Amino acid sequence: MRAATIRDGEVLVEQHPDPEPGAGQVLVRVRAAGVNGADMMQRRGRYPAPPGSPQDIPGLELAGEVEALGDGAMRFSEGDRVMGIVGGGGQGELAVVHERQLMPVPDAVPFPEAGGLPEVFTTAHDAVLRRAALRPGERLLVHGAAGGVGTAAVQLGRALGAHVTATVRNPDAREAVARLGADEVIDPDGFEEHGPFDVILELVGAPNLGANVKALNMEGRIVVIGIAAGAKGELNLAALMSKRGHVMASMLRARPLELKAATARAMEREVLPLFARGDLRVPVAQTFSLDDVAAAYDNFAAGGKLGKIILEP
Amino acid sequence: MRAATIRDGEVLVEQHPDPEPGAGQVLVRVRAAGVNGADMMQRRGRYPAPPGSPQDIPGLELAGEVEALGDGAMRFSEGDRVMGIVGGGGQGELAVVHERQLMPVPDAVPFPEAGGLPEVFTTAHDAVLRRAALRPGERLLVHGAAGGVGTAAVQLGRALGAHVTATVRNPDAREAVARLGADEVIDPDGFEEHGPFDVILELVGAPNLGANVKALNMEGRIVVIGIAAGAKGELNLAALMSKRGHVMASMLRARPLELKAATARAMEREVLPLFARGDLRVPVAQTFSLDDVAAAYDNFAAGGKLGKIILEP
Repeated sequence: MRAATIRDGEVLVEQHPDPEPGAGQVLVRVRAAGVNGADMMQRRGRYPAPPGSPQDIPGLELAGEVEALGDGAMRFSEGDRVMGIVGGGGQGELAVVHERQLMPVPDAVPFPEAGGLPEVFTTAHDAVLRRAALRPGERLLVHGAAGGVGTAAVQLGRALGAHVTATVRNPDAREAVARLGADEVIDPDGFEEHGPFDVILELVGAPNLGANVKALNMEGRIVVIGIAAGAKGELNLAALMSKRGHVMASMLRARPLELKAATARAMEREVLPLFARGDLRVPVAQTFSLDDVAAAYDNFAAGGKLGKIILEP
Repeated sequence: MRAATIRDGEVLVEQHPDPEPGAGQVLVRVRAAGVNGADMMQRRGRYPAPPGSPQDIPGLELAGEVEALGDGAMRFSEGDRVMGIVGGGGQGELAVVHERQLMPVPDAVPFPEAGGLPEVFTTAHDAVLRRAALRPGERLLVHGAAGGVGTAAVQLGRALGAHVTATVRNPDAREAVARLGADEVIDPDGFEEHGPFDVILELVGAPNLGANVKALNMEGRIVVIGIAAGAKGELNLAALMSKRGHVMASMLRARPLELKAATARAMEREVLPLFARGDLRVPVAQTFSLDDVAAAYDNFAAGGKLGKIILEP
């Protein structure tokens, strides 16, 4: 099979042996695979794939059709439309995935969108609903709301009945984020004037830490899942105590199978029904064929677009 | 009635009007009232009592007998032995407390101990069991384990079936903390070598923050309830993300009635039965009559003793 391949800081397409599904695994013919920030880091050699995942084929999510089943795999049948998060290897014509990590693709979701759904919606759902336990009527602040996880978090907050404030640096992207359901779209500078917030989704990093604590409501929760702008910041414990606040940090990739499977089941219960009835959508900025993977990566790295970059092998 | 009174940075005994129980309140004849760190701060004018509590009579906890019932109070009868946390006013001959904030005193617990039970055990229970959700088999680290909350946390962790590591600066106090049930009593310097810990109870403050994150297990929780040694510290979000860790901060005093009542009900369910069967105890360092309140405060401020300082009005 042909697959995107990382070689010396470049991404290109190479021929690889067809993967074979082991016990409990499913062989998926990939129809769409999202490009993510981690792929950029992996291209620069900074984000090695976890053990057991292909080391040189990037790609953290995929959607496609079941091509074959490994021993004992029983959740899906050949031809079923499936999607899921993988530790790596998503951006090839074929991929093997443990059946417990896969989710069915709702009929209402076409393939390009399905290929960009698992990573951002699972990340946002896990952070905002499972970790921070956002409740209806609470106020949610989404930092970096024009990004992939941000657009998912805005939609999930709105669907849950929370009041959603979104920070977006680029004025041109604010209208699109408002259309996704944000009640309020603001510039990141001075966001703390718009609080207090019950849940703050931090996708930017340590520079926001102090203002986040200031903007927190009583019993508020800050969930940190991105630190591109800095990893270390000063935390005022007295301020956090006075609000009985929580700072939670999380990442998905390093989790063992049982936790990844648990997040997939939670997605099936709580999020996929909202896609099935059309309440949520995956904004797609652009699709690329596998041959154009380098252009797709460059396009992602350039930023500035709202929506996912999707490869179609 | 006579009561401890804060005047110009001093604590003395003054005559006050007898308090009268309002609707839902209980008039308690106080038999024992613990001295706490907050009393020291209040003496220095640094910790004003919350609105609705006596502003000049200190005392955050008390135990005694029900002397009279306000309108509609029905949880207790005259003569019942009760104890509880109050926003202030615990260190007088009489005090009024809302009945939902009071707990029955188990028969096995005599008055001096009961007067020093509510604050430290509610604080430790709320932080370690309710907030951090310590589970059997997990590893608990208690910083400052020779203090009041520390001794309570060590005993609660042991009773739950956790493995308890206690840091104690004073070598003379280590044997006593081990007798309370700590599996391991260590010097605070280099504590992070003894990890990883699932739950860390932070009673010291910001200087421990970096080492706490280093010593955290996957999915670990740091609960900050004391910051005497410093309020601001650097938090490494990348390290916290890699462990999917939590930093939680809390304080009891500023909570509204419904939350204080909820903590009291949780204490009745989860902690008082352990006192009734003799699994837990309140170490008492020394008791003082109300007339000796200044000596009691000086004794508390001097530190170095394991166990509570109790006033007996």
